[in-house]
Amino acid sequence: MAEAYQKEFFNVSFPAEHVAYVEINRPEKMNAFKEIMWLNLSAIFRQLSHDPSVRAVVLTGAGDRAFTAGLDVTAASESGALASSDPSQDSARKANFLRRHILEFQSCITDIEKCEKPVIGVLHGISFGLALDISLACDIRISTTTTKFSVKEVDIGLAADIGTLSRLPHSVGNLSWVKDIALSARIFGSDEALQYGLVSSVYKDKKEAVDQAMKLANLIASKSPIAVLGTKEIINYSRDKPISEGLNYTAVWNAAMLQTEDVKSAMTSGMKKTTPRFSKL
Amino acid sequence: MAEAYQKEFFNVSFPAEHVAYVEINRPEKMNAFKEIMWLNLSAIFRQLSHDPSVRAVVLTGAGDRAFTAGLDVTAASESGALASSDPSQDSARKANFLRRHILEFQSCITDIEKCEKPVIGVLHGISFGLALDISLACDIRISTTTTKFSVKEVDIGLAADIGTLSRLPHSVGNLSWVKDIALSARIFGSDEALQYGLVSSVYKDKKEAVDQAMKLANLIASKSPIAVLGTKEIINYSRDKPISEGLNYTAVWNAAMLQTEDVKSAMTSGMKKTTPRFSKL
Amino acid sequence: MAEAYQKEFFNVSFPAEHVAYVEINRPEKMNAFKEIMWLNLSAIFRQLSHDPSVRAVVLTGAGDRAFTAGLDVTAASESGALASSDPSQDSARKANFLRRHILEFQSCITDIEKCEKPVIGVLHGISFGLALDISLACDIRISTTTTKFSVKEVDIGLAADIGTLSRLPHSVGNLSWVKDIALSARIFGSDEALQYGLVSSVYKDKKEAVDQAMKLANLIASKSPIAVLGTKEIINYSRDKPISEGLNYTAVWNAAMLQTEDVKSAMTSGMKKTTPRFSKL
Amino acid sequence: MAEAYQKEFFNVSFPAEHVAYVEINRPEKMNAFKEIMWLNLSAIFRQLSHDPSVRAVVLTGAGDRAFTAGLDVTAASESGALASSDPSQDSARKANFLRRHILEFQSCITDIEKCEKPVIGVLHGISFGLALDISLACDIRISTTTTKFSVKEVDIGLAADIGTLSRLPHSVGNLSWVKDIALSARIFGSDEALQYGLVSSVYKDKKEAVDQAMKLANLIASKSPIAVLGTKEIINYSRDKPISEGLNYTAVWNAAMLQTEDVKSAMTSGMKKTTPRFSKL
Amino acid sequence: MAEAYQKEFFNVSFPAEHVAYVEINRPEKMNAFKEIMWLNLSAIFRQLSHDPSVRAVVLTGAGDRAFTAGLDVTAASESGALASSDPSQDSARKANFLRRHILEFQSCITDIEKCEKPVIGVLHGISFGLALDISLACDIRISTTTTKFSVKEVDIGLAADIGTLSRLPHSVGNLSWVKDIALSARIFGSDEALQYGLVSSVYKDKKEAVDQAMKLANLIASKSPIAVLGTKEIINYSRDKPISEGLNYTAVWNAAMLQTEDVKSAMTSGMKKTTPRFSKL
Amino acid sequence: MAEAYQKEFFNVSFPAEHVAYVEINRPEKMNAFKEIMWLNLSAIFRQLSHDPSVRAVVLTGAGDRAFTAGLDVTAASESGALASSDPSQDSARKANFLRRHILEFQSCITDIEKCEKPVIGVLHGISFGLALDISLACDIRISTTTTKFSVKEVDIGLAADIGTLSRLPHSVGNLSWVKDIALSARIFGSDEALQYGLVSSVYKDKKEAVDQAMKLANLIASKSPIAVLGTKEIINYSRDKPISEGLNYTAVWNAAMLQTEDVKSAMTSGMKKTTPRFSKL
Repeated sequence: MAEAYQKEFFNVSFPAEHVAYVEINRPEKMNAFKEIMWLNLSAIFRQLSHDPSVRAVVLTGAGDRAFTAGLDVTAASESGALASSDPSQDSARKANFLRRHILEFQSCITDIEKCEKPVIGVLHGISFGLALDISLACDIRISTTTTKFSVKEVDIGLAADIGTLSRLPHSVGNLSWVKDIALSARIFGSDEALQYGLVSSVYKDKKEAVDQAMKLANLIASKSPIAVLGTKEIINYSRDKPISEGLNYTAVWNAAMLQTEDVKSAMTSGMKKTTPRFSKL
Repeated sequence: MAEAYQKEFFNVSFPAEHVAYVEINRPEKMNAFKEIMWLNLSAIFRQLSHDPSVRAVVLTGAGDRAFTAGLDVTAASESGALASSDPSQDSARKANFLRRHILEFQSCITDIEKCEKPVIGVLHGISFGLALDISLACDIRISTTTTKFSVKEVDIGLAADIGTLSRLPHSVGNLSWVKDIALSARIFGSDEALQYGLVSSVYKDKKEAVDQAMKLANLIASKSPIAVLGTKEIINYSRDKPISEGLNYTAVWNAAMLQTEDVKSAMTSGMKKTTPRFSKL
Repeated sequence: MAEAYQKEFFNVSFPAEHVAYVEINRPEKMNAFKEIMWLNLSAIFRQLSHDPSVRAVVLTGAGDRAFTAGLDVTAASESGALASSDPSQDSARKANFLRRHILEFQSCITDIEKCEKPVIGVLHGISFGLALDISLACDIRISTTTTKFSVKEVDIGLAADIGTLSRLPHSVGNLSWVKDIALSARIFGSDEALQYGLVSSVYKDKKEAVDQAMKLANLIASKSPIAVLGTKEIINYSRDKPISEGLNYTAVWNAAMLQTEDVKSAMTSGMKKTTPRFSKL
Repeated sequence: MAEAYQKEFFNVSFPAEHVAYVEINRPEKMNAFKEIMWLNLSAIFRQLSHDPSVRAVVLTGAGDRAFTAGLDVTAASESGALASSDPSQDSARKANFLRRHILEFQSCITDIEKCEKPVIGVLHGISFGLALDISLACDIRISTTTTKFSVKEVDIGLAADIGTLSRLPHSVGNLSWVKDIALSARIFGSDEALQYGLVSSVYKDKKEAVDQAMKLANLIASKSPIAVLGTKEIINYSRDKPISEGLNYTAVWNAAMLQTEDVKSAMTSGMKKTTPRFSKL
Repeated sequence: MAEAYQKEFFNVSFPAEHVAYVEINRPEKMNAFKEIMWLNLSAIFRQLSHDPSVRAVVLTGAGDRAFTAGLDVTAASESGALASSDPSQDSARKANFLRRHILEFQSCITDIEKCEKPVIGVLHGISFGLALDISLACDIRISTTTTKFSVKEVDIGLAADIGTLSRLPHSVGNLSWVKDIALSARIFGSDEALQYGLVSSVYKDKKEAVDQAMKLANLIASKSPIAVLGTKEIINYSRDKPISEGLNYTAVWNAAMLQTEDVKSAMTSGMKKTTPRFSKL
Repeated sequence: MAEAYQKEFFNVSFPAEHVAYVEINRPEKMNAFKEIMWLNLSAIFRQLSHDPSVRAVVLTGAGDRAFTAGLDVTAASESGALASSDPSQDSARKANFLRRHILEFQSCITDIEKCEKPVIGVLHGISFGLALDISLACDIRISTTTTKFSVKEVDIGLAADIGTLSRLPHSVGNLSWVKDIALSARIFGSDEALQYGLVSSVYKDKKEAVDQAMKLANLIASKSPIAVLGTKEIINYSRDKPISEGLNYTAVWNAAMLQTEDVKSAMTSGMKKTTPRFSKL
């Protein structure tokens, strides 16, 4: 099955039943991103979203040094939206070109969030700039004792625009800290990331973190896919809305979803202490 | 006065002036809920809301073992919305029946949030499933060193739909952890609940937790009822809205409420170091 | 330059390039506020917002005892909106007078939030009532080991209406704690403030806290002013909005802002390991 | 069946299959409302909402003179929320009493909007004040050539608070006209009501209007109850929300509702030119 | 009293009790606007808002030819935000300068909407560009048979940014027509303006329109100022919000405002057929 | 250029400079839609959106009989989401399949709304069901004296889910009429469509309507593409948002867009009475 997912700069494998393992694979450049990479990332997650044999996803970076060092600034300074452009060009037309470009780039990263299956991001080593945009689009973030985080964008003269600044205030419980790290671009470690709410677990090293991520992915994959889909969807919906709207949406969602056979299977298994089997989504 | 509140499966008492003590009372089933219980819970809190002699409420579960083990799954599997139904029934009509049922169930639990008086939930022992839906509708959550929490619903094949998934992202400051506990249904303790923001205090055991809850309730009950009502209302309103809307609502609210005699009484007492007395709400 | 900022009860100085230092200066009354003070505070921050030579602001209180003890209750009880008024006045007309007054007062404090430059609030000593309204309108909050915080308003018979109740639930990751401190008006220290997310750092004493605030302000002031402006603006916008709206706004914002020369300067400096110089905003 | 609906001041009948006919019945007072009447109105519509034999509702006023002259001002001035009250009562406590009262009154009228079945309001004769609050909670409004409309509330010293001012700007396509009629309380006729969008049809007299309303109700009642329910629900939801949210809600709603047998029945009947029969809702 | 309102390019008079008459006064340039004019317009309306002797406002343009021809393009092309600027200036810094400028300009026009007293705009003759921005911030718009309207901005290369494009879709009931006039910049007359919902009445000529506006202003000024204030505020609030939020806001608003003596005066006068007198706001 | 747009069931031509003419081309089936058609429609509009030589689009249906008769019900009943499915399939899994399908279908139609260039829909002949979903995603709707409209969906047992019910209440100024046509599925003509606000012009026949649409498209195409782009974008944004948010977005948008050379060109041409030329977008 992994062949269907072959995309440059990514490895996709299926190390356990129902669990996909996606690796950003450009270790010689610390997994720094150029344009083809976010297009490929998007393609992979759109496919995983509807793949009936997948129930949970682990996302990580190849090599020991970095989840990703962020945008490949050298490539970006040579071509693409940030490259210095024709000064004679009309500012408004250039602005519209940039707007299209940013919206498309954001949309690629948001495809992780839109993936119907939960995504666990494992942040190890250098995790700068785009590393935060990407991991904040994941459902669960874990890291290692040596991870180095930075909302790096102000250091290249811009406000982070691929999702970090929009998702951070909804993900983390200390707005003062959010502004501190985003305005200073300072490097911080997993102790702060855990204390302030950016990650939910920290493990010794990449190996242990990946093992634990796989364990959690396996656990989630053992649950009803209908229950898991609804749980992800309703939390994301409610995060952005008044509680009364979250409640109403939940009622409409479950009007269909409670009709699943999974409830019966799960309840019966729970009472009989057996392992339920659920059909594909 | 307690007689007016007699409802099956609940004890309501008034252990101190202006403080109501509500106990879920089905300890032989670990306070598991069946339909009559959420209807009674709602009736009690609607009455407390307008009861002029009540200024703060403590909510707890009877017995040593559980705040509540959640939905009474055995009862639910025998009758009610989750019971396996006539397969010949039209799916859409069944969906509408389920929607009505969920909206009504949610509405009963939301009556705790709508109660004009602050509600302190004391979570001890087993606190699964509905325990979270209920306590997240409380204003303040405290627990004990041995409380066992679980967002249990995915284990019975469904997304939690009585409020947990809608209220958690607005109550807790680590969205990664919210997804972790909701997708895995794993059991966690008060250390995590405190670290990630689900509860605000942890005490040694149920007795101490209840004592502290009563102490806090007494403190709140000693304040101006007008000030307390507004504080609860404005925080709940603002939690769901942009800050500019929260500010505007506050101005309209206080346009009436600052005309209270309580401001004068409180200021005078503050300067004279006496205890103010406030009239009933 | 400081002369342009001379306002009663405030000291404004420029201890480092691009950094403004604003001091609430009424130490003999523990920096308690009367009406002229919030009007002056507003005027100062509106001016700082557009001052091209300012890139970061530190806000603190004069003296050793208090950031501010809050509203000057004695003054307020003698005149102004809270003073006991003509009982024969029509309640509705009085309500509209109060509404206008609250909206104007809120608007003065919100001018800190609207200031285009990041504001670091240093909370030391007594930090009651208005201290929270003011510091929650700052971007970054730091405190000292001896700071005493209190959402004091219920103790004078009212719901805090100058911003605390609207901003707290969006700034802090434990809603149970928010209600606890707001409903009880109890005094708490920096340990709680840090644990629950109200401040992001705690230092030994005022001197150290101010030194660190200046260090952070200098760091921020060394970045591209365009990048810093956008980072503050987009976080504040996104805090209040669904993520999809935050992303779209970011794209439109950066459509203009990515055209800055600062990106090129910052990238070049980053690659050459030199210090970039940015023109004024 | 009509017996189950017996409530003072209302007649409920079922003149055609699946169609309920509700008449406000206090013609000797031009159907003016006192408190028991809105409580009864609410009870009737909550019951109609879930009554499986009802698919459309017509709402009208008894007698020739009025749909309703609005609030019974004489009754209101003698007792109830608007009656002059004890001047010694605390303004804030009185405000909270009024708030509870208004919310309850609004909620009764909103039960028409929440009724799962479409409601057609027939406005004839005097249609003042509450007549607009009530009819704006209906789905379809029709009137007669002699109907006299007025948003009467400013003439009794208050802003209309039972729904008119909230629903008008979402129901009518001329905001200038909305303010004109609401600020002046002037009486206008069906020509204006039709031109500016308050009603969608005007008929010669009450008899013809009721006949046409019944005809329309019969037509709606002949459709799939699932399709009708969804159409009402989605329009009401979308009226209040950005289009992207309306679309998403529609998709979740129809995920369940498209599974109805009604689609098959309706398609088959449509192709065979037969009359479909749909099971009850 | 009119002296307090003396501002260049405006005449403010008080032709009837409680009614202010504001005239844009630059007839030799068809009342075209330059920067000082919108600053003065704002100052006038902020003062009218709190002026206790004013209860309604009529806004018109001096001379026979134009309400206003819009922005004074000649002036704008010579200096100000639209003037061709230093091409060497950084695009992002220029963008921020423009943003500040637009926000301030919008804010001046919005002061008409924020004025607590209803404003009737009389559009006669040429009513181009800014004429729409201004009149859409009024509460009621009337015109004459010879008024010439145009959303002129695309003809000078820009999207209308002082309010027309934001307010039109909330004011008018034909979105297709809104786009037609805004995209084509074509000139249209009062027949279309009335048919599609931009104005609510059309009169023969300026004199008649002003007479009718004064008549309406007098009528509004004869009502309870508390009722009129609330009616304007609640309609504006509700226009922008879901109906459930409009209802809740209304309840909080009226909790204070129903305590007015005006209700009693108005009811008594209504029953006795006398003219009520209301105290100042 | 038209070759790049060759898609089955559509004709795309460029009858005038900068104007695209898109024709739904399945006249033998009254332009009824099957799945490939909405996918192709989406592809065409996504391409037009970024095509620098296109500035306005006219959308029409081939043949004399219909804009489109809507969904090809025969095809839909044989295969696809509405086809009767395996009764043994799990209802929840089927619901998720339907949700995915509806979201994708909606997204195709929304691509008309997202197209950066204005789209004028010409509705002639039969315009049922999907005809409304499609035309409501256009910017401007015009029709002919013989157009027959119907929100047909309830007649096939479902609530219209491809946009009609979400867009109608934001497009039309008579909510009573919206519910009337949506609940009854009755056929109505251009007189009603014009009166109630669904279309903005009606012409004698298809030929005249197309001629007028082309004339309007040519007029729009002669304007600054930057001004036109912003006008469409800001109206669509503001339609869905509170006015204060529309104003703020406009300021950020124009911060970039006012820097265009088009303003200068347009102003100069306006003063010199010459025709401006604008560069491509």
